[in-house]
Amino acid sequence: MKRTAFFISDGTGITAQTLGHSLITQFEKIELAQTALPYIDTVEKAQAAVERINHVYEHDGQKPLVFSTLVNTQIREVINTCNGLCLDFFQTFIGPLEVELATPSSHSIGRSHSRNKKEYTSRIDAINFTLSTDDGVNTHQYEEAELILVGVSRSGKTPTSLYLALQYGIRTANYPITEDDLDSNALPKVLLPYRSKLFGLTIDPARLHAIRNERRPSSRYAALAQCQRELRIVEQLFKHSNTPYLNTTQLSIEEIATKIMISLGIERQLL
Amino acid sequence: MKRTAFFISDGTGITAQTLGHSLITQFEKIELAQTALPYIDTVEKAQAAVERINHVYEHDGQKPLVFSTLVNTQIREVINTCNGLCLDFFQTFIGPLEVELATPSSHSIGRSHSRNKKEYTSRIDAINFTLSTDDGVNTHQYEEAELILVGVSRSGKTPTSLYLALQYGIRTANYPITEDDLDSNALPKVLLPYRSKLFGLTIDPARLHAIRNERRPSSRYAALAQCQRELRIVEQLFKHSNTPYLNTTQLSIEEIATKIMISLGIERQLL
Repeated sequence: MKRTAFFISDGTGITAQTLGHSLITQFEKIELAQTALPYIDTVEKAQAAVERINHVYEHDGQKPLVFSTLVNTQIREVINTCNGLCLDFFQTFIGPLEVELATPSSHSIGRSHSRNKKEYTSRIDAINFTLSTDDGVNTHQYEEAELILVGVSRSGKTPTSLYLALQYGIRTANYPITEDDLDSNALPKVLLPYRSKLFGLTIDPARLHAIRNERRPSSRYAALAQCQRELRIVEQLFKHSNTPYLNTTQLSIEEIATKIMISLGIERQLL
Repeated sequence: MKRTAFFISDGTGITAQTLGHSLITQFEKIELAQTALPYIDTVEKAQAAVERINHVYEHDGQKPLVFSTLVNTQIREVINTCNGLCLDFFQTFIGPLEVELATPSSHSIGRSHSRNKKEYTSRIDAINFTLSTDDGVNTHQYEEAELILVGVSRSGKTPTSLYLALQYGIRTANYPITEDDLDSNALPKVLLPYRSKLFGLTIDPARLHAIRNERRPSSRYAALAQCQRELRIVEQLFKHSNTPYLNTTQLSIEEIATKIMISLGIERQLL
């Protein structure tokens, strides 16, 4: 069953798309065509969007799903005239919030994302820190890290580090456990002063084998036995050193990041 | 005026926090304390959350704002007994969607983020590509790029590239325009075969001066006159070569990314 969903906003439309997408994932059988229509900030653009939605309605023979976060009432009224199922997230919730907060909302467009200089700078600083300490380099900067991810090669450290820096401004270093570290059967010395910042990532051997095999086919590095050995030793290492750790095999980057923040008690502030 | 907001979910709570946060930004005078309560997936955890909300209610003397995306009806009912203002995004919208789609929702937890192997892999591949082509290296890989950001040092290329790769799986390279390129007054030769993938970033000279000055105080690199000169030449370059470009000074990373995707006609698929 195929449906078209529109995500409409007077800003980036990221909020509309995030919530709309997560609602639709509750309907497993729906195959979705996604169309984002950001920056619909004039009546003219809203009218053009309505035409586009109505065109899809005629083509599909069923109502497009129209998810929106429209601050401006006039623009929202234009969108509401379309032949789709209109679900506006602001319309529904701004009212109850205005009553509870006993204050009118500002109806100002494009306020969702941080453009505040200070927040922007701390976000960029976190990204720069994370890039400069990726893959075990610049360990002399660990004093400034909020979090240091530890694990074998290809266990998901880099994407998770970047996500935490980019979305939450968390200065995240990552350190790969190498053959030398595995032989010593102890946490690498360079990590010892920062034990409270450490978090381990593991992964199922079969999955690690598949990932490494794509990068270096039929190498010793990618061999299943090698993956099993590395993961067995590194998990023992985490256990013996009381380092919290997580198996990432079945998890999205968002889920890994959330579970790490819970485990280490890092507050998640949206920037 | 200070308020406490809770973001509650049986999954990561990222959707609840994104929408809740963007609703609250419509109330400028509200100073917000944010608390994310992810993975509230049992009645016991829901009861503990209610206690925590009620405790804040007694302490603050006013209702906490409780934004949630709870799939499980039983858990949602427990949360709804708290002394906060409860706004559940699923409760409100799942009903109309079930009617329109003529199918019950699956009420299954944790489906919002991609855990699909294929999507996960394409996301990781995009991040690896973007890292390996950051700051003008490995230009021989440009054939595989979907997008190449171009601009002077510190105009926002790296954070934007990483965001596009991480959120949307877009393989984004970036190329810094250097002194040599500025002297030649033409697009660098290495970029010429990929003109349809190019997008330029500019920034106000005063802002660039401030950013560079934090990194290399009082350097020639950071001098206002130097920033003005580089930006003047690079904007001419963009104009003469018909390269679309954007001034990033007043924009968040999300806004820059959205505007680039619109300009180049790249569809934004949530992974």
